[in-house]
Amino acid sequence: MNEPKDSRNITEVDLLLINGHVVTLNDRDERHPHGAVAIRGEKIFAVGSCEAVQESVNARRTLDVTGCVVLPGLINSHTHAAMTLFRGLADDLPLMDWLQKHVFPAEQKLTEDWVYRGTLLACAEMIRSGTTTFCDMYLFEHKVAEAASHAGMRALVGEVLYDFPSPNYGPWENGLKHTEELIRAWQKDPLVRIAVEPHALYTCSPDLLKKCFALAEKYDVPVITHLSETQSEVDQILEQYGCRPVVHLENLGLLSSRLIADHCVALHESDMELLARRSVRVVHNPESNMKLASGIAPVPQLLSMGIPVALGTDGCASNNDLDLFGEMDTCAKLHKVSSLDPTAMPALTVLHMATRNGAKALGLENQVGELSPGKLADVIVVDFQKPHLTPVYDPVSHLVYAARGADVSHSIIHGRVVMEDRQLKTLDFEEIAGHARQFARLITS
Amino acid sequence: MNEPKDSRNITEVDLLLINGHVVTLNDRDERHPHGAVAIRGEKIFAVGSCEAVQESVNARRTLDVTGCVVLPGLINSHTHAAMTLFRGLADDLPLMDWLQKHVFPAEQKLTEDWVYRGTLLACAEMIRSGTTTFCDMYLFEHKVAEAASHAGMRALVGEVLYDFPSPNYGPWENGLKHTEELIRAWQKDPLVRIAVEPHALYTCSPDLLKKCFALAEKYDVPVITHLSETQSEVDQILEQYGCRPVVHLENLGLLSSRLIADHCVALHESDMELLARRSVRVVHNPESNMKLASGIAPVPQLLSMGIPVALGTDGCASNNDLDLFGEMDTCAKLHKVSSLDPTAMPALTVLHMATRNGAKALGLENQVGELSPGKLADVIVVDFQKPHLTPVYDPVSHLVYAARGADVSHSIIHGRVVMEDRQLKTLDFEEIAGHARQFARLITS
Repeated sequence: MNEPKDSRNITEVDLLLINGHVVTLNDRDERHPHGAVAIRGEKIFAVGSCEAVQESVNARRTLDVTGCVVLPGLINSHTHAAMTLFRGLADDLPLMDWLQKHVFPAEQKLTEDWVYRGTLLACAEMIRSGTTTFCDMYLFEHKVAEAASHAGMRALVGEVLYDFPSPNYGPWENGLKHTEELIRAWQKDPLVRIAVEPHALYTCSPDLLKKCFALAEKYDVPVITHLSETQSEVDQILEQYGCRPVVHLENLGLLSSRLIADHCVALHESDMELLARRSVRVVHNPESNMKLASGIAPVPQLLSMGIPVALGTDGCASNNDLDLFGEMDTCAKLHKVSSLDPTAMPALTVLHMATRNGAKALGLENQVGELSPGKLADVIVVDFQKPHLTPVYDPVSHLVYAARGADVSHSIIHGRVVMEDRQLKTLDFEEIAGHARQFARLITS
Repeated sequence: MNEPKDSRNITEVDLLLINGHVVTLNDRDERHPHGAVAIRGEKIFAVGSCEAVQESVNARRTLDVTGCVVLPGLINSHTHAAMTLFRGLADDLPLMDWLQKHVFPAEQKLTEDWVYRGTLLACAEMIRSGTTTFCDMYLFEHKVAEAASHAGMRALVGEVLYDFPSPNYGPWENGLKHTEELIRAWQKDPLVRIAVEPHALYTCSPDLLKKCFALAEKYDVPVITHLSETQSEVDQILEQYGCRPVVHLENLGLLSSRLIADHCVALHESDMELLARRSVRVVHNPESNMKLASGIAPVPQLLSMGIPVALGTDGCASNNDLDLFGEMDTCAKLHKVSSLDPTAMPALTVLHMATRNGAKALGLENQVGELSPGKLADVIVVDFQKPHLTPVYDPVSHLVYAARGADVSHSIIHGRVVMEDRQLKTLDFEEIAGHARQFARLITS
């Protein structure tokens, strides 16, 4: 029988997870093999051993997660969510054929409604695979923000900007205005934030890039761009501006901690030093880089220089899923074989990339990425009672090398249960799937 | 209303799958988007459009698999099944530390009972992830044969043989006798066959290797060995025998279609030519080769030389799962990035590696690996009604780039349903998991 609690020290909480193996990913990498997490409102109230936490709280609702691992929700730091609509449309093609004969023509059929629906499909997939925050770049991004909000997902999103006219906003000047409106509209939202997102150095003039940074500074929001994704991009910038992409940004005075740089595959040692010195945030997308044959980003070196590299899936046209569990596995293995060093990229390092480092990259390090009292309650539960997760010596090993998105049983974002026993609580998958099939018929007819 | 069937042309079948997208993987790569598969006894009786198949059969049982893809069961052409017991025991370590400080000491605790239980755990995982046939090398392999038989899985297994004494059979002479007894004992089994399995060239003398091949010839069974897994193996054989591993086997007169060679990572062009000329069967294990930092096997070249390379997961100590869907995805992406060619290893090629090529490698090409009338009924059903498999342009793309083991809903081996709606019909997972946890406590106490 439990002893009566001392009511003076008891706090009422909304949700209490008990009997899980809690992997906090806090600074001390604390684990609680028979642990509990208490959630009050949108925040984590307590994390610790079951005994200690249960003594200090009265819970409106208690969830017994015996046999499960509880950890911070995963952070997909680079994707193009609505491209779920193009999943498997065209694979195994030369890059230019893929883009010009398949992706671009299909994108001509996009409207803001399709982007909304495609993003809902992505949110359904991400929630079901343990992602609680995503960072997006695409067209009609106001609908991405709406979809994330509807799904109850945390997101950093921004309209893609480039020199040529956009099907959404027309000329780039309008794109900047559109972005500014988005920033203002979502400024107080608890889940969705806006970034300024110039597409890449080969699609944006120095003038546009500078205006993007000025806008971002005005509102103190991040700038996100694709950077050094391929050697041919580097060659093109070298030819156009006489310097490598990273140096081009440095020359424009735009390398800073405000910048989130996606891919960073084709880097020289000197590029890496510049990125580190300027505290640029880097997002690694191993599966997309592999599938498009872009190359292998020097992630172990970037990490060793103190850059907290984050992890992303990129869009579904080049992956072809949004499962960060699979991405972690591939990430760890890819860098071991490419360096011929089995000690490269240990499991915990890779798990940090998909959680803590993601939070740092997106400027959310004070809010999410670990299970600690006071942080926002973005929490996932992974059910280890499966053959492929048996036996357990170290849960972190399984999270990276054996678990997959389908093993996530519960997902909580901002204190709200958005998936329970694999059932989505905020989204109607049947309706979403119907729309996606309708779109597939549209672009293949 | 259906028209009455012409009873003269109607065959009674045991199981009929209807309304699936049937991917036959036969020589003409036939697909039936609204297809059916009829199974009679242990064999496939008919494959085709729903209308055509339903007209020709009366089924004792009909399964409606609307929204699912039906394909041949996957073939895991190289594993060490019982090593599921060591899943996640030690990762991210230098190879020799991993082997000598963790794997070998843990293996000292193995008994034939533990091998039996570890293999049952592997069978549970493989059945649940769509594998219907596996090829195994380990200790106490008579228990692996028993476990496969109990699980209802098709398997090619063999006791590992090497120069030093084995905990199972003692000196190698006994190992050959033990293998011969196994061959005789399982000769008439419908599911399990035995191979002769010298471990590797650096652990087996030329004399032992020759005796292995002589035994295999006597009973017309395959020989299986690890070959050129790492550059250090190549260096060691070069130093010991003055030639590379493939040439060493050629000099001994042992390179032939009887040989199944696992890994084949560190190959020269001349090695590849020899392997192709002698019709050696090659098994690729990309995830293990990546995790152990062994290197990248030249699979596109081997395929282009006409070697039907098969796919394996290797053991769980170096992967750490047995999911061939994930293995296919990684395989396709790894070779694209390593060749910097996005057209390398297209999805269908990789799917063939895990099905048709596996059947060829294991000498089962007349029995399994495709859905065709007269072949054995090893059939899996993959449920595509999930966010990450929506929409569908090409099911083969999803099977390789987006599906995972957890998407398999039904598995049929030799005409018997061994998994139905993800429920194992031949195995008691709770009991198996209890044993695995007991073993984990034993080796960590």
